[in-house]
Amino acid sequence: MKDLNGRLDLCSINTATLGYQLPIGQTIEAVARAGFGSIAPWRRELEGESVKIVSRRIRDAGLGVSGYCRSSYITAESTMQFSNAIEDNRRAIDEAVELGARCFVMVVGGLPKQSKDLAAARQQVHDGMAQLLEYASEQKMPLAIEPLHPMYAADRACINTLQQALDLCDALDPSQGCSVGVAVDLYHVWWDPDLEAQIKRAGRDKRLLGFHLCDWLVPTNDMLLDRGMMGDGVIDIRSIRHWTEAAGYAGSMEVEIFSRDNWWQRPVAETLAICAERLQTVC
Amino acid sequence: MKDLNGRLDLCSINTATLGYQLPIGQTIEAVARAGFGSIAPWRRELEGESVKIVSRRIRDAGLGVSGYCRSSYITAESTMQFSNAIEDNRRAIDEAVELGARCFVMVVGGLPKQSKDLAAARQQVHDGMAQLLEYASEQKMPLAIEPLHPMYAADRACINTLQQALDLCDALDPSQGCSVGVAVDLYHVWWDPDLEAQIKRAGRDKRLLGFHLCDWLVPTNDMLLDRGMMGDGVIDIRSIRHWTEAAGYAGSMEVEIFSRDNWWQRPVAETLAICAERLQTVC
Repeated sequence: MKDLNGRLDLCSINTATLGYQLPIGQTIEAVARAGFGSIAPWRRELEGESVKIVSRRIRDAGLGVSGYCRSSYITAESTMQFSNAIEDNRRAIDEAVELGARCFVMVVGGLPKQSKDLAAARQQVHDGMAQLLEYASEQKMPLAIEPLHPMYAADRACINTLQQALDLCDALDPSQGCSVGVAVDLYHVWWDPDLEAQIKRAGRDKRLLGFHLCDWLVPTNDMLLDRGMMGDGVIDIRSIRHWTEAAGYAGSMEVEIFSRDNWWQRPVAETLAICAERLQTVC
Repeated sequence: MKDLNGRLDLCSINTATLGYQLPIGQTIEAVARAGFGSIAPWRRELEGESVKIVSRRIRDAGLGVSGYCRSSYITAESTMQFSNAIEDNRRAIDEAVELGARCFVMVVGGLPKQSKDLAAARQQVHDGMAQLLEYASEQKMPLAIEPLHPMYAADRACINTLQQALDLCDALDPSQGCSVGVAVDLYHVWWDPDLEAQIKRAGRDKRLLGFHLCDWLVPTNDMLLDRGMMGDGVIDIRSIRHWTEAAGYAGSMEVEIFSRDNWWQRPVAETLAICAERLQTVC
């Protein structure tokens, strides 16, 4: 396993970690100044900005783009809403291309309103992904399905395990064209008894497109916005990182921490410094 | 699938649903008066009581005992703590026998303090269960492993899917002696893409010992104490009940709702009446 000590160039900051406190231009400067090699911006930060200019700023700062966050939800109440979601995601894929992102991160959506039919929602995801994959392949933008923790099955993503995400990849891309894969986020998958085997499978099939780090706090006070800094929780980060690298992952170690009451309240430079320190000492 | 209309005799109330507002004697009376066929008491309610007398009251009220809740955690920081947990669970098994419970419900514990080693915790569970199973088999008390939602992996139970629980059953009891099985609780498993297949497997192997009902609310405001009444959330209860009965489950439909801010604030009779109504109309 790579030693991250002195190798922040291998590491990335997902901008959600900084609580969107600064305009994207300043965020880019701060991430570069802290020594990181890459950044993963959110789409909401690019609203009203020229994607071309943001892309140039990122390159000028010497940063790569480990991923572009993220899809709008595919699951939908109506055909119209579904079509709009596909259309919107096509535009996001264009942006990801403009940014030179390594992948476009897909959070697929949970149950449509009024629905209790998880199987139907999952079928919608398959169908929508098939349409998007065709488009993304033409643009040569890999789609990274991010399985979300099962506690988000209803309201954020009905793809909830790495196995399920990889089964979906196989259904969409049986020839392993490297156009669709997974983003492995520790927060979502750390509990999974099948994790090691599925990471190995993902590596073998060239599906490992992203690796996101944070920690699981005990207790967790908010189901969405109380993620921990690496080292402050119970995830055996080093083992999972080892499995992932052994499976062939060579991309960035991307920090992504949603933490409304702690890290988002701190100055950006402080959070970045602590991310850097933890990546080099506990990950 | 059985029609529950007019068949509350097939249904059970897990006393946690009532927020432990009343002493166990009054709870028993209230559950019987509301027309239910069974009850599932918690160990904490029997503290300071004679288990023999409680058992007689339950029988006198015409109730069965669909399960006895629940094991103390098996996972432990030290050998001493582990031994104590085994010993304590042996006593609980004796109580379950005295109560005439259909099964003893096992919530196995999460990570021991200071540990990040899920695999080791799971091995402890295996080893502890093996010891307990020997004892429980002598007492003819079936052990029902309850896989808990992955969001409890750190602090409550490191057995988190039905597949994992059934794999553990197979490891402990390869001859399918009916002495160890699972309690399927909708709250914990509803999201699982493999649920239907694993329920079928559980039925085939005679492992279905309990079935717990509640609902998943959107939003969920507390990770432990904000479960919903059947019909108020997004779980497709009827489909999952259908799979379970088709797999051969013939035990009680047991309502178990932890709801600090809603159902636990209501009079016991009101909650019981609404449980009865929902069981007969939406389940």
